Amino acid sequence: MAESASQDSIIQALEADEPARARALIGALHPSEVADLIESMPAHDRAGVWALVDPSMESDVLSDLHASVRAGLLETMHPHRVAAITAAMDTDDVADLLQELPREAGDTVLLAMDRRNRERLASVLAFPENTAGGLMNTDVVAVRADVTLDVVSTYLRKLGRLPEHTDSLMVVDRDNGYLGVLPLADLITGEPDSSVSAHIVTEAGIAALTPAQEVARLFEQHDLISAAVIDEGGRLLGRITVDDVVDVIQEQAEHTLRSMAGLGDDETFAPVLTSTRRRALWLGINLLTAFLASWVIGRFEATIQQLVALAVLMPIVASMGGIAGGQTLTIAIRALATGQISRANVRWLMAKEMLVGLFNGCIFAAVVAAVATLWFEQVSLGVIIGVAMMINLLVAALAGALIPLSLKRLGVDPAIAGGVLLTTVTDVVGFMTFLGLATLFLLPR
Amino acid sequence: MAESASQDSIIQALEADEPARARALIGALHPSEVADLIESMPAHDRAGVWALVDPSMESDVLSDLHASVRAGLLETMHPHRVAAITAAMDTDDVADLLQELPREAGDTVLLAMDRRNRERLASVLAFPENTAGGLMNTDVVAVRADVTLDVVSTYLRKLGRLPEHTDSLMVVDRDNGYLGVLPLADLITGEPDSSVSAHIVTEAGIAALTPAQEVARLFEQHDLISAAVIDEGGRLLGRITVDDVVDVIQEQAEHTLRSMAGLGDDETFAPVLTSTRRRALWLGINLLTAFLASWVIGRFEATIQQLVALAVLMPIVASMGGIAGGQTLTIAIRALATGQISRANVRWLMAKEMLVGLFNGCIFAAVVAAVATLWFEQVSLGVIIGVAMMINLLVAALAGALIPLSLKRLGVDPAIAGGVLLTTVTDVVGFMTFLGLATLFLLPR
Repeated sequence: MAESASQDSIIQALEADEPARARALIGALHPSEVADLIESMPAHDRAGVWALVDPSMESDVLSDLHASVRAGLLETMHPHRVAAITAAMDTDDVADLLQELPREAGDTVLLAMDRRNRERLASVLAFPENTAGGLMNTDVVAVRADVTLDVVSTYLRKLGRLPEHTDSLMVVDRDNGYLGVLPLADLITGEPDSSVSAHIVTEAGIAALTPAQEVARLFEQHDLISAAVIDEGGRLLGRITVDDVVDVIQEQAEHTLRSMAGLGDDETFAPVLTSTRRRALWLGINLLTAFLASWVIGRFEATIQQLVALAVLMPIVASMGGIAGGQTLTIAIRALATGQISRANVRWLMAKEMLVGLFNGCIFAAVVAAVATLWFEQVSLGVIIGVAMMINLLVAALAGALIPLSLKRLGVDPAIAGGVLLTTVTDVVGFMTFLGLATLFLLPR
Repeated sequence: MAESASQDSIIQALEADEPARARALIGALHPSEVADLIESMPAHDRAGVWALVDPSMESDVLSDLHASVRAGLLETMHPHRVAAITAAMDTDDVADLLQELPREAGDTVLLAMDRRNRERLASVLAFPENTAGGLMNTDVVAVRADVTLDVVSTYLRKLGRLPEHTDSLMVVDRDNGYLGVLPLADLITGEPDSSVSAHIVTEAGIAALTPAQEVARLFEQHDLISAAVIDEGGRLLGRITVDDVVDVIQEQAEHTLRSMAGLGDDETFAPVLTSTRRRALWLGINLLTAFLASWVIGRFEATIQQLVALAVLMPIVASMGGIAGGQTLTIAIRALATGQISRANVRWLMAKEMLVGLFNGCIFAAVVAAVATLWFEQVSLGVIIGVAMMINLLVAALAGALIPLSLKRLGVDPAIAGGVLLTTVTDVVGFMTFLGLATLFLLPR
């Protein structure tokens, strides 16, 4: 809340055309707060705030910005200015940034860098952004296993400054082969003339091509703060730190949520037309589903004509199927994403979901049958909606579990396509069983 | 995948009644993998696996288990055994665990502990679980600002071992007042006879009652690995480490997702009857909504009787409203959870969502009007469904933004109640405008 208050006063200062006051207020913020401020402004106001950011903060603010917002600002900047800012950034952040620039601008930035930075960068750019290699930082302190702690301490004292988040040093052999880590704590508490090898903590290195999701899981499971990244020959390439992994974890769960809502990569503060276009795609797909459901209903026009109560009650069957199926779908999507599903338990899980569907099917079939019977004073109508509800909740459980499993096997992200497929099934089955049973059993022949 | 493979072979070993082989396979796993394995088994098989876990691993496995799964295992254990296991656990984890035990069992465990552990625990138990105080660990190395680095090094060497994840020491004054941190890296690289005060990095302490969500935001924004927790007088109480915060971040996004799907605190591997009950609650609430929508349709029975095409088309209007509103709702809920919404931008955001609703309303009104006209060969029907669609998408945008903002103001979690309120609005408005307009303009008078 304190933050929103200062955001408010910065915006007031900008509106009152007092750039000096705005600059001072911005200077008092943490870089990540400045990034939040810029992101939370309409696109056309962002460059104005960016121009007021103190040069010493620019690289941190840029690193913290959401990729698409950053791309917008980079477009307005001269490549040499971009190159100057990147000098102070972590390698992995510079790599992300370069990939967002148009090819030509990216090349200009690369050329404007000094050689050391360019070389550091090349090794990160060699890997896709969403792999361990793309997440890593090449700014690593490595020591040899056969020296004494005292030698290491002297070396570090000469170095003067350690990279951020250093809680341990990497230990390598003479070919840069990764052996393990030396915790700083052990360096301090250990006997100065004991050898590094006596203090090595064996911790597996992460292969450079490991997917980011898998890296996040390793960090979570092993409570890591940093981990070594190695090439196929086991040589040390760099190091991943927990702050980059927190971003991956954050984005991952966020991705499921946004995909399921049909937002694609739409963002809160994207321009109106961009958001309209991104969301229209999903609305369009759903319109097709809705027309399909309407077509099913259309097959029963004559039945509805004779018994309008069917039109009144039919949305209940479809909607309850959608909700129940959505519960199973969400469980299955998260279990797949977090690796909880194995061959050993998939049968048990399917059986469980079917049983839950059966039990809740019984409960809500009874409730809905009773209400429909009382409302329309017709027992046969109550029985039919009850049976239809039971069938649809069972089908919903089956579809909610099978759809994500099949999509995953086909290599399609279940979070994106799962919801619309499920609704298609529950709508079509819901309308068809209810209206179909009514046609068979309720109409005079 | 390697993990699922070993899970499979453990389960095979259990089924083949070869406990010795299963025990060996379990012993080869990381404690967090064992926790995953136990969680991914049906409830009645968990105790069997737990009995095979090596005693040296027990405390780590327990810490990693999901609260409700852990509670199930604790019930089967003798309090003295629980007390023995907790001795090796972090204070915050023990505090969580004690709160899951029935009162009597919890007291027995407390009494079975040695005095030092009991005292450590008391300070954590004094704070609610979901606050900085509840997350903190009391296992902290604190040093005075007026001593030299050399004295600190000697002290640490005597101490022998530093707590896990120690990248910096806490600096306090003589009354235990928190002053800042001394990074281990500076301790190593600094002049041995310089004073600690020359190397203090000022980093704000977190007040013990700060909500866990806010703590997670601070860690993310400032890329922290650990942070001091202080009381109202600024005295050092303990320390929060990033691994506990990663769990908070993970649970937070997961919570939104599960709440929106109406899963409550249901878990993937909960027993069938538990899951049935938890999900039935949400299905019941949605049934009420569905009946409300049916009641609205029921008001127009006479209209539908005369023009059955209305029954065929009406689900389209309601469903598109639900999808479009859900997009806005998800954006708003996440923006509220991550603190992106401030007084300064809330108007702009509302205006944006209304405009997106207007534009997509125009697009889909036109599409649906054209299809309906061609299908039922009646222009007036096409116009009416187009207008109804436009109105419902605008209302959906308004409701999708206003509902979470109002719920938040009322202190209700928007992720839990937002979805059902939104669907109620879009269903009722969808059916009412479409059927109402049709009654006014399509029927012969």
